[in-house]
Amino acid sequence: MSFILKRCSIREFKDIAIEPEKITALLQAAMQAPSAKNQQPWEFIVIDDKSILLELSKTSAGSWPLKTATCAIIPMIMPSELSPHFRVQDLSAATENILLEATNQGLGSVWIGIYPLEDRLSHVENTLRICGDAHPFSIIALGYPLKEKAVLTRFDAKRVHYNKWGE
Amino acid sequence: MSFILKRCSIREFKDIAIEPEKITALLQAAMQAPSAKNQQPWEFIVIDDKSILLELSKTSAGSWPLKTATCAIIPMIMPSELSPHFRVQDLSAATENILLEATNQGLGSVWIGIYPLEDRLSHVENTLRICGDAHPFSIIALGYPLKEKAVLTRFDAKRVHYNKWGE
Repeated sequence: MSFILKRCSIREFKDIAIEPEKITALLQAAMQAPSAKNQQPWEFIVIDDKSILLELSKTSAGSWPLKTATCAIIPMIMPSELSPHFRVQDLSAATENILLEATNQGLGSVWIGIYPLEDRLSHVENTLRICGDAHPFSIIALGYPLKEKAVLTRFDAKRVHYNKWGE
Repeated sequence: MSFILKRCSIREFKDIAIEPEKITALLQAAMQAPSAKNQQPWEFIVIDDKSILLELSKTSAGSWPLKTATCAIIPMIMPSELSPHFRVQDLSAATENILLEATNQGLGSVWIGIYPLEDRLSHVENTLRICGDAHPFSIIALGYPLKEKAVLTRFDAKRVHYNKWGE
């Protein structure tokens, strides 16, 4: 089974640091994502400072996994004039690549949505003193999973249509 | 090397049909994507009718790969009240999963952006007689690659920051 089918959200982590070469693999995967006109409208912040992770865990109701995460990656959405309407899609592909490579590396992860919600953006931007045209797009909490989690298959044949829409 | 690093856009395809079990694998990968509050705001149209593929190749300047594609998948973005602001991100993760599983299956693929551009939406919706609240999100052209393509590594260490933004 490919790691695409094994990926699931992991929200509790062991107190074991992630090897630096694994973080590099996650960042390589992120930057290998496709982007509209190859604009690559992204930068990345790696957070392994526990006090910052704790502050970021207050961003939203779903941010509590950052309390036990040993690391987080924040993809930043950057200005681009090449194809601005597709920047969110580009950043989403990069985020998904990080989640999948984490699974491939034996790590757990969960995607915490930030952009475009104003209250979440301002909490993260205040915490990291981000200003200007760059914005935090998401936070990916990372770590070794506290528990194994059974994989749920979400495939639903009723959602597939052939050569036409409907029925 | 994981297939995440091997994926690249393929725009010319051999005239060889894709096995149905490979299409199923792509759809399984798509529906295994994460989504906000697990809302799964997606359905999928599989197109293997050559006359429809040809008509869809006129959608945008970048849609010509559909002329030689033997198949295309159109993820549809569906209404959802759970977390509507994150539907584009959910659909992007599903699209990226299809591209990656295609690479894993030895297939070539390219992501053709549709949503939210009005002219592209109306061409696809007119071609497939789509109306109402469901919209085509992207078109993924698929097929066996006409040529091998060298993998370009896009990793750039200058785009990585640690525990703070800037410098």
